[in-house]
Amino acid sequence: MSGEFELIDRITADLEVRDDVLLPVGDDAAVLRLSGDTVVTTDMLIENVHFKRQWSPARAVGRKAVAVNVSDVESMGARPSSVVVALAFPKDLDQAWVAEFEEGVKEECATAGVSLVGGDLSSAAIIAVCVTAIGDLEGRRPVTRSGANAGEVVAVCGRLGWSAGGLAVLQRGFRSPKELVAEHLTPTVPYGQGALASAAGATSMLDISDGLLADLGHLVERSDVGIDVETARVEIPEGVERVAAATGKPALGFVLAGGEDHALAATFRNEAVVPAGWTVVGSVNDSGKVTVDGVAWEGSTGWDHFG
Amino acid sequence: MSGEFELIDRITADLEVRDDVLLPVGDDAAVLRLSGDTVVTTDMLIENVHFKRQWSPARAVGRKAVAVNVSDVESMGARPSSVVVALAFPKDLDQAWVAEFEEGVKEECATAGVSLVGGDLSSAAIIAVCVTAIGDLEGRRPVTRSGANAGEVVAVCGRLGWSAGGLAVLQRGFRSPKELVAEHLTPTVPYGQGALASAAGATSMLDISDGLLADLGHLVERSDVGIDVETARVEIPEGVERVAAATGKPALGFVLAGGEDHALAATFRNEAVVPAGWTVVGSVNDSGKVTVDGVAWEGSTGWDHFG
Repeated sequence: MSGEFELIDRITADLEVRDDVLLPVGDDAAVLRLSGDTVVTTDMLIENVHFKRQWSPARAVGRKAVAVNVSDVESMGARPSSVVVALAFPKDLDQAWVAEFEEGVKEECATAGVSLVGGDLSSAAIIAVCVTAIGDLEGRRPVTRSGANAGEVVAVCGRLGWSAGGLAVLQRGFRSPKELVAEHLTPTVPYGQGALASAAGATSMLDISDGLLADLGHLVERSDVGIDVETARVEIPEGVERVAAATGKPALGFVLAGGEDHALAATFRNEAVVPAGWTVVGSVNDSGKVTVDGVAWEGSTGWDHFG
Repeated sequence: MSGEFELIDRITADLEVRDDVLLPVGDDAAVLRLSGDTVVTTDMLIENVHFKRQWSPARAVGRKAVAVNVSDVESMGARPSSVVVALAFPKDLDQAWVAEFEEGVKEECATAGVSLVGGDLSSAAIIAVCVTAIGDLEGRRPVTRSGANAGEVVAVCGRLGWSAGGLAVLQRGFRSPKELVAEHLTPTVPYGQGALASAAGATSMLDISDGLLADLGHLVERSDVGIDVETARVEIPEGVERVAAATGKPALGFVLAGGEDHALAATFRNEAVVPAGWTVVGSVNDSGKVTVDGVAWEGSTGWDHFG
């Protein structure tokens, strides 16, 4: 295994950074010149908790670690700027794993439009990845979870149910529908839509990571409102229908309560201002709870690491 | 074990934040309003690699995780602003460990003058901590590793050799000199000195984490200069003398090549501008290497995780 400094040199040799990076990787810290307020969020991915090596190629782990963090920056209405990536792994891990992880990180950074500006390498008994993402509000105010008002509409942007469908497939030992499995391994974050929604006047917004209903529950709590989701407006992807049929679970459950979607949910004053690419799925009321077609949801709602 | 959301609620219940935090913990991301460029750095602490549970109380792990990151912000000449802390731990870990870790994080944040603005909790087979620290350059230019010039002086601020001495003590199964062991478990970072050195005209600066000589080697390489350390100007702490006598290792080795000091080293145009609290230990020349009293150092120089 090559030494820590050699490995860092290799990883950082061909890094390209955006104009807002004054000082890239290579010093004690990176320096960014942002035009507005600074958004910061962090998330860890742990082997055998968030991913399994036999299911997730290293490249997918690298991509997902960046994606799930940048998604949180998007949900504040900010432009994603940069990430720092800390990686710990066993000393006997195949070097190819680290190289592919690194490619995945760079690939997702390019897709998201962010610069990789720092990191840390360490040994550990398991693989642990921690990414922190920085965003630039560019003069806009942050779009929080607490700005929703009764009478507004709820819209989503991104893929709901795909990731949970993919996980169900993997858990049964299968690999298809491939598009759902791929989505579970690396979510397709709707990059750029957070800033667009903010500019369109989104009153509240958040990243859907615990499942749509669970996360709308956070909006309801923080905004002191209620939300009703209309199932007639919720699209059920064809792949999710197939997984639902194969597993005997309701398709709607994957979409409403699946988790790890890393789509965006936001509220807007009315349907007319909702940007293209967003789908209205419900409305804000004053019931104090999340309902589905007017009644409480009977299925599960999201997941909890320590539940 | 309480659920993830309950635990987060408990940790964030009594958080105080500084004026530069527009949006604290509780949304998808935190928002900071900095007055200058944004500094960002990240570091992981892994159980059985960076700390051992039988040596480090949870409080010390929490403090150290914050300290080593803020030290990197200091070394850019920035004012430390905020940290985000990701923690992964085994499901069966004693709840008291998490509570004490959390106290340590908050304690060190208070000492460093930074706000805890976000985090992530996860389960894992081992304890893994990842902290990202954010700094505000407040209109100053970053002080990098590449600005040193021949003819300047090299000065240090902080405690050299204490941490390595403490580690040697622990490795032999002892607990004293207590002040060295304490320093190994939680380094005493010279908070505020980075910005002070920058204002005094420091031409280059870095955090001493791999050992003084190894880190000065980074300065030499990046600034394309040479550095000579004069041992007559290097203070040997009394505790380090005692450990050296007990272990039969040269005391100077702990101070020059110990590692994990988290002190600061900087170069200044001349001795007259070096701020109070800093000690001149050598000079910058054009030799292209680090020497000690004019000759190459024969002992070890720093450590490498994957060496």
